[in-house]
Amino acid sequence: NPSSFSGGVDCRKPRRVVLVKAEAEGVGINPDIRKTEAKVVDSVVITELAKPLTAYCRCWRSGTFPLCDGSHVKHNKATGDNVGPLLLKK
Amino acid sequence: NPSSFSGGVDCRKPRRVVLVKAEAEGVGINPDIRKTEAKVVDSVVITELAKPLTAYCRCWRSGTFPLCDGSHVKHNKATGDNVGPLLLKK
Ligand code: FES
Ligand code: FES
Repeated sequence: NPSSFSGGVDCRKPRRVVLVKAEAEGVGINPDIRKTEAKVVDSVVITELAKPLTAYCRCWRSGTFPLCDGSHVKHNKATGDNVGPLLLKK
Repeated sequence: NPSSFSGGVDCRKPRRVVLVKAEAEGVGINPDIRKTEAKVVDSVVITELAKPLTAYCRCWRSGTFPLCDGSHVKHNKATGDNVGPLLLKK
């Protein structure tokens, strides 16, 4: 019966433990890109695509946003996330 | 000279204040989408696009991912973020 326990713990010095669970739902996902814009929207006119394959960033960490520069790899490794680009194929 | 201050504050009961700054850099950005996949990559064959304008999600909150369903609006409002879709135009 746990309620009958009366061990040697000194209850006069309570320990406070603060647990913080970071929840992606409650925070923004874009730390730096075009923060002066209310909403970052990009348009691709597909007839103007030059290459047979173009990768567009969805991780908001690319140095060449809106294009993907591979930064999602570092982001996924650092956070345990699983995001990747959108590939446009001609 | 602030070091000579000796006001009426009771220093025997220190107050502990924990400040937590949520940093998007340290957490994942995709809470739910296709979490069994190591990396969520989607391909669009642009010759197969049906409509003159198609919006692709970059907020990882869409119920119709990889398409945008407008969920970025709620996400931006809830978090102060500024993300939006990639628009493909024929
Ligand atoms: S750099 Fe962002 S998805 Fe690749
Ligand atoms: S629902 Fe994700 S960008 Fe619109």
